[in-house]
Amino acid sequence: MTEIGIVAVGGYNEMGRNMTAIIIGEDIVILDMGLRLDRVQIHEDVEIDKMHSLELIEMGAIPDDTIMKEINGTVRAIVCTHGHLDHIGAIPKLAHRYNAPILATPYTAAIIKQQIDSERKFEVCNRVIPLQAGGTYQVTEDISIEFIRVQHSIIDCVLAAVHTPAGAVLYACDFKLDRTPTMGEAPDFERFKSLGREGVIAMIVESTNAGRSGKTPSEQIAKDMVRDVLLGTEESDVGMIVTTFASHIARLKAIIEAAEEMGRIPVLMGRSMERYVSAARDVGYLDLPSNVEIYGMRKDVDRAFKRIMQEGKNKYLPIVTGHQGEPGSILVRVANGETPYTLDPGDKIIFSANVIPSPMTQANRYALETKLRMKGARIYDDVHVSGHAYREDHWELLRMVNPEHVIPAHGNMEMHGHYIEMAEDAGYVLGDTVHLLRNGEVLYIEE
Amino acid sequence: MTEIGIVAVGGYNEMGRNMTAIIIGEDIVILDMGLRLDRVQIHEDVEIDKMHSLELIEMGAIPDDTIMKEINGTVRAIVCTHGHLDHIGAIPKLAHRYNAPILATPYTAAIIKQQIDSERKFEVCNRVIPLQAGGTYQVTEDISIEFIRVQHSIIDCVLAAVHTPAGAVLYACDFKLDRTPTMGEAPDFERFKSLGREGVIAMIVESTNAGRSGKTPSEQIAKDMVRDVLLGTEESDVGMIVTTFASHIARLKAIIEAAEEMGRIPVLMGRSMERYVSAARDVGYLDLPSNVEIYGMRKDVDRAFKRIMQEGKNKYLPIVTGHQGEPGSILVRVANGETPYTLDPGDKIIFSANVIPSPMTQANRYALETKLRMKGARIYDDVHVSGHAYREDHWELLRMVNPEHVIPAHGNMEMHGHYIEMAEDAGYVLGDTVHLLRNGEVLYIEE
Amino acid sequence: MTEIGIVAVGGYNEMGRNMTAIIIGEDIVILDMGLRLDRVQIHEDVEIDKMHSLELIEMGAIPDDTIMKEINGTVRAIVCTHGHLDHIGAIPKLAHRYNAPILATPYTAAIIKQQIDSERKFEVCNRVIPLQAGGTYQVTEDISIEFIRVQHSIIDCVLAAVHTPAGAVLYACDFKLDRTPTMGEAPDFERFKSLGREGVIAMIVESTNAGRSGKTPSEQIAKDMVRDVLLGTEESDVGMIVTTFASHIARLKAIIEAAEEMGRIPVLMGRSMERYVSAARDVGYLDLPSNVEIYGMRKDVDRAFKRIMQEGKNKYLPIVTGHQGEPGSILVRVANGETPYTLDPGDKIIFSANVIPSPMTQANRYALETKLRMKGARIYDDVHVSGHAYREDHWELLRMVNPEHVIPAHGNMEMHGHYIEMAEDAGYVLGDTVHLLRNGEVLYIEE
Amino acid sequence: MTEIGIVAVGGYNEMGRNMTAIIIGEDIVILDMGLRLDRVQIHEDVEIDKMHSLELIEMGAIPDDTIMKEINGTVRAIVCTHGHLDHIGAIPKLAHRYNAPILATPYTAAIIKQQIDSERKFEVCNRVIPLQAGGTYQVTEDISIEFIRVQHSIIDCVLAAVHTPAGAVLYACDFKLDRTPTMGEAPDFERFKSLGREGVIAMIVESTNAGRSGKTPSEQIAKDMVRDVLLGTEESDVGMIVTTFASHIARLKAIIEAAEEMGRIPVLMGRSMERYVSAARDVGYLDLPSNVEIYGMRKDVDRAFKRIMQEGKNKYLPIVTGHQGEPGSILVRVANGETPYTLDPGDKIIFSANVIPSPMTQANRYALETKLRMKGARIYDDVHVSGHAYREDHWELLRMVNPEHVIPAHGNMEMHGHYIEMAEDAGYVLGDTVHLLRNGEVLYIEE
Repeated sequence: MTEIGIVAVGGYNEMGRNMTAIIIGEDIVILDMGLRLDRVQIHEDVEIDKMHSLELIEMGAIPDDTIMKEINGTVRAIVCTHGHLDHIGAIPKLAHRYNAPILATPYTAAIIKQQIDSERKFEVCNRVIPLQAGGTYQVTEDISIEFIRVQHSIIDCVLAAVHTPAGAVLYACDFKLDRTPTMGEAPDFERFKSLGREGVIAMIVESTNAGRSGKTPSEQIAKDMVRDVLLGTEESDVGMIVTTFASHIARLKAIIEAAEEMGRIPVLMGRSMERYVSAARDVGYLDLPSNVEIYGMRKDVDRAFKRIMQEGKNKYLPIVTGHQGEPGSILVRVANGETPYTLDPGDKIIFSANVIPSPMTQANRYALETKLRMKGARIYDDVHVSGHAYREDHWELLRMVNPEHVIPAHGNMEMHGHYIEMAEDAGYVLGDTVHLLRNGEVLYIEE
Repeated sequence: MTEIGIVAVGGYNEMGRNMTAIIIGEDIVILDMGLRLDRVQIHEDVEIDKMHSLELIEMGAIPDDTIMKEINGTVRAIVCTHGHLDHIGAIPKLAHRYNAPILATPYTAAIIKQQIDSERKFEVCNRVIPLQAGGTYQVTEDISIEFIRVQHSIIDCVLAAVHTPAGAVLYACDFKLDRTPTMGEAPDFERFKSLGREGVIAMIVESTNAGRSGKTPSEQIAKDMVRDVLLGTEESDVGMIVTTFASHIARLKAIIEAAEEMGRIPVLMGRSMERYVSAARDVGYLDLPSNVEIYGMRKDVDRAFKRIMQEGKNKYLPIVTGHQGEPGSILVRVANGETPYTLDPGDKIIFSANVIPSPMTQANRYALETKLRMKGARIYDDVHVSGHAYREDHWELLRMVNPEHVIPAHGNMEMHGHYIEMAEDAGYVLGDTVHLLRNGEVLYIEE
Repeated sequence: MTEIGIVAVGGYNEMGRNMTAIIIGEDIVILDMGLRLDRVQIHEDVEIDKMHSLELIEMGAIPDDTIMKEINGTVRAIVCTHGHLDHIGAIPKLAHRYNAPILATPYTAAIIKQQIDSERKFEVCNRVIPLQAGGTYQVTEDISIEFIRVQHSIIDCVLAAVHTPAGAVLYACDFKLDRTPTMGEAPDFERFKSLGREGVIAMIVESTNAGRSGKTPSEQIAKDMVRDVLLGTEESDVGMIVTTFASHIARLKAIIEAAEEMGRIPVLMGRSMERYVSAARDVGYLDLPSNVEIYGMRKDVDRAFKRIMQEGKNKYLPIVTGHQGEPGSILVRVANGETPYTLDPGDKIIFSANVIPSPMTQANRYALETKLRMKGARIYDDVHVSGHAYREDHWELLRMVNPEHVIPAHGNMEMHGHYIEMAEDAGYVLGDTVHLLRNGEVLYIEE
Repeated sequence: MTEIGIVAVGGYNEMGRNMTAIIIGEDIVILDMGLRLDRVQIHEDVEIDKMHSLELIEMGAIPDDTIMKEINGTVRAIVCTHGHLDHIGAIPKLAHRYNAPILATPYTAAIIKQQIDSERKFEVCNRVIPLQAGGTYQVTEDISIEFIRVQHSIIDCVLAAVHTPAGAVLYACDFKLDRTPTMGEAPDFERFKSLGREGVIAMIVESTNAGRSGKTPSEQIAKDMVRDVLLGTEESDVGMIVTTFASHIARLKAIIEAAEEMGRIPVLMGRSMERYVSAARDVGYLDLPSNVEIYGMRKDVDRAFKRIMQEGKNKYLPIVTGHQGEPGSILVRVANGETPYTLDPGDKIIFSANVIPSPMTQANRYALETKLRMKGARIYDDVHVSGHAYREDHWELLRMVNPEHVIPAHGNMEMHGHYIEMAEDAGYVLGDTVHLLRNGEVLYIEE
């Protein structure tokens, strides 16, 4: 029988720089090539787009794929299950080493192309093949990739089933089981179950929030909270600015809809805001109201702010970058007084985002919030729900898919520990059917 | 001009045992008489209903109203703004000392009567006068009490405006600004504003959640989360038990509605569950579906559990006491195996409640959850939103009411500190227009 | 070659109920049989001494040694490396199942005998053999046990080397590398190193504090802090009470010495205080000043307190049980006003102990401290240092002993995770040379 | 009688930028002029030495002394009680506005002069007058300043008693009651008590650690821990670097002594290291062994590192700046590989410092530690004790000095809250004898 191997390339010891390789006899399928941003942030004056992959590997910022040299077999496909940087951010640095196409859903594919275009060190020529959720791509005669619809904090996210002669390997890295999503449809529960009945030899699954009790709240909850914060106020005439993840199209849609209801013109600002939104429009996933304005370049942003100040802050709802206090982002520039937009006491700043739990980010957010508060702004923090499955979502997925082996990924040892304890509750045995892998390790599954 | 004094009797140094007295010349209005449960919990084998008030005062469990002896004036009314124990729980111990009626909304009045009935030490004969939200009660020729509609984690909660010749004193202890409540109507914002325009000399306001950023989520959010947890599962056939605050009628209604949608019979269990729900039905605030079952006494509860086991756990949704792991509560008895209801691995236990942040409660909850987990139960924790205003709700209320003086209450020094910093943002000055009072202190407001 | 197996019986998924078995061909050596107290504390009215082992196993309170039935081989010895309950507390419940002597250092042996004597359910007849640190005991022709001197928060603690034909297995559960101990000598570093040179096939090692940075402070630090708190005050005339671990003889000695220096008579109070101290005197490890008083029984304690009140609180230093707020302990009885000792405002209560991080204990401590504070006592908390090795102590031991395989024990998954990351720094590889075991798992070491 | 006023200029709402003014009839004495570093750190590219005071006031970095314009009276003296930046850092920006001498102990005076010399915006010509601990300086005919010996985390720290016709005002900002200091003598307890007997009308006292239980450990504890970390290792041949506060001369002395005992040459490195140590030698407080090397300038540091690498890392003990991860500090440059000193796996880095609890600092430390760990360094963190009095030290000082009024300073509202609760235990009453002041507020004490 075909031997199946699972190579933990990156993201097994940490959050970020996710990369897994599945060995199927002589063939290899790679899943994700991600970037760990906080390993970049601890250095000053780093320009990633000009750096060599080996340097980034040494920094711990991208997966150490040099271990792939020791693996026999040919890489047949690189599969990305959604468009976040910790899943696709290393493609510009690593993909060209493999003579294999990149497979992704249409929105993810569009983001990947943007990434490749902005790379300044390497030339990445791999073909990028869009595949719809629900679709299947034949990799070799024996191997096919199936995309199964799921929800996450970015649109067009899927789980990838790698069908092999020995059975399916399910890659479930980054998902939530949202039954009332605000964009797209609920996860394809029926397919999870039928896959389980067909037989899954292994599931590689994110452990990020396996330690959190219960189930992840639906994006509908976030939408309602956003709406309540924006519309549920007796001080509706003040300046208001919202900041959120530029890639979180569903959230942006909720904010834009609230702006319409408020009678304010939504103005999207910031380079990444422009890029992610444009991509969503291009692939036909986002239909914006005609009055929405979008400005990516600094010059255009500042001109728009100037106009807003002239016409009245209460006529507009700027939706901007800067939720993590990123230096150079729009909200940071506003807080520094570097734009024409001036803050008055009582203006509202809404963070429709959590704070990423890294000391680097926490410092940036602290600096930003302190400046905003000193100008009299009122802060609405964490108007947000997570995009990662909590413990009971994991419990249900595990029991639906019923894999022979389960491997937590996309987290550190503590997160994996939480997943393992849940899996033990479901009857799995550590070292036998649930496995704790470390970066650089290969697990061969014996049938 | 009439001198106004504010007496901080209890709840200014701690959470619980709230009591404030307003001196208006020769007259006095008392607001709330609460019980601090965790000062009882640190002792073993305490039977509150048989204890003397002086003993409970010494324990720090009820307000030390002996300071009232040093205050000149006659108590004309005791006003309770909602039915939680930390606001009404000391009435059976203290009210009889004052020759004054007790004023409360109908639901609160019903709860107060239950409290008085179960007292075994003192005979409390004060008249209990129900007053609707929106209504006004003339206390003396010069003084009247107005109830203003607001939302909280219990129905029929109001703010109380004490109208005096010197202007109004607003008592805003325990509220949230919920614009999409699931029972009752939104707070009476128009009245807050008109009161502000008429002139408020002082506002006494809870500081409990003044340290939490943003605004309190609506009860609608909790309702949606409850529904999602109960209905949003692929394992809908297992045993499920929900526990929540027996006094949180809106939450109970949401759970019961979800049960109906699930096709399960809702079964309310536990003595306090029966008491609070009966009171809500009696005053006409709760209209239950015909199939709802309610059992207060242990014998009846156990008989019902036996029947549930016979007919199938998946046909019923027990809604029980025990969310804080209270010894003797239904859920604790289930976890101990002291009822006919047996837990199977995979059964779901839903806590539609937060954990009260006291070490005594945390230990009870830990013991309960450990036992439940050891039996294989899946725990859904904190399916809940707060009933207390967050910082920006306070900001808006303060600016609507625009009182000359503001006094944080219903919290400890840290909570008051958060409120004071917010009030300073709004232009108030500590020691001049915003005041930090300690239990036993009197503040005279000089005009 | 002789096959070596390591059976993780208990203490691999949790703190407490430690038990490991080493399989050496046809022979078995058991290491520790411990009790997990917080699994007892979550139940009301439990009397351990009357309970059956199977019931305690089901509660998760003692190791589930029923798995030993599936192991081929004969148990030749039960070895306990120190006298804490989480290492010896299950001996009265489990040891009689094995026809094997119990091997322990003299002090540990004395404590074990006390345990066996107070058992009321089982009759435990295993021979208890004392072995000095530095000594070796021949178990079979091929197998011997060597005790190697180390330090911990109890006297007479050792590491146990199990010498087998395949090499040594080192059991290092509970130790600190204290170079300036206040009783006994520093750990036998030379032996650790020579053992490493001889070849250690496996080390089983506690992971409890592997997550704490740096190295554990010496007991000398605790001694200095105790002395500073007791003597370094301008209010030396007030009542003072110290509470600490009854089994922590070195700490008791430091407190007694401080009492002498203060000119106060040290009075040890509480049943466990009497038991542990008597054992230490009996084996000749503790030489108390002639004026020390010791009272174990309630009647005697209360009589002593009465005398102290008559002669002056400032003439005595009561050293009592109750540091974790245990119900019925002396300090709890003092706080409850159940003894003749009355607290005055300004009296000092010194906790020469940490709070054990379990919600049950935290609640007990909270109740105790609240009562003490309400009586005006001044609290000195955490006048203490840990007895468990921190990360860098582990680093050094690991490099001295240089085992082929290392297995973290005596902790939960998070603690093991910290140990594994440290071991990885030292070149170990998870699943290959460092192993994460779960209760009930057997690891066979292939040479 | 002379009216006494206390002006809370800065440091009453926050840590840092301390400044208090005492009004004595027509005369004013200023105490401290400090800098709040984390209000500078949230901005990029700030050069404090070139900035105007008004800009720094607006940033919240230095005290807003513009309120002094509204105070009648003449400033007669500026008193600094020790040399930390949060007490003297604003002198170069503010002192020139007052025609008054600066009074400080010899070491503090030396540090102040260094500060003034490095200022590039203002010319500060105030006379700096050294006054020994124990000495008294006559400010006017009626007013004198007495310096009373105390301990803190910097040498030559005092409490300042401002003697006025109405009695003494004691300024107790930053102290610990260390009875076994490693440099200098214990606090002058006798003087505290005699002052108390003479009558103190007000005490202004730091609240920083009033929330921490018990008493601050002695610096002797830190010295023993430093020695244990440096000498108590079986891996004594590896590279070792220590970092600590450059101004903490007693700690530096302990480290240097340990280096001598290790047979390593101590090498002090970094600009601030050179400055503080030189000042201590100049005033005769520090007598260094002849082999100690000190390098302030980058060129000299790097040359020394080169030599260390050539001669052997195990022959030297670099004692460097960088304990808070400050950009540009020596340890950060080592971690970045910007010096000739290369780190090998197993090298030890000892932080003889806590992490300052600001997100900006935490991020710097995280970045530094991450880089060090990635190079294989072993980290010893928090080998340190605090220099600020804990709750029971405050309790004792308060009862010795027995002031009529007490005002917590040098902290935020939460810290003041803890102090107030302690003072209440001692019989003080909030708003009457213990006062919560906010920046900009004046308290007049009525006799």
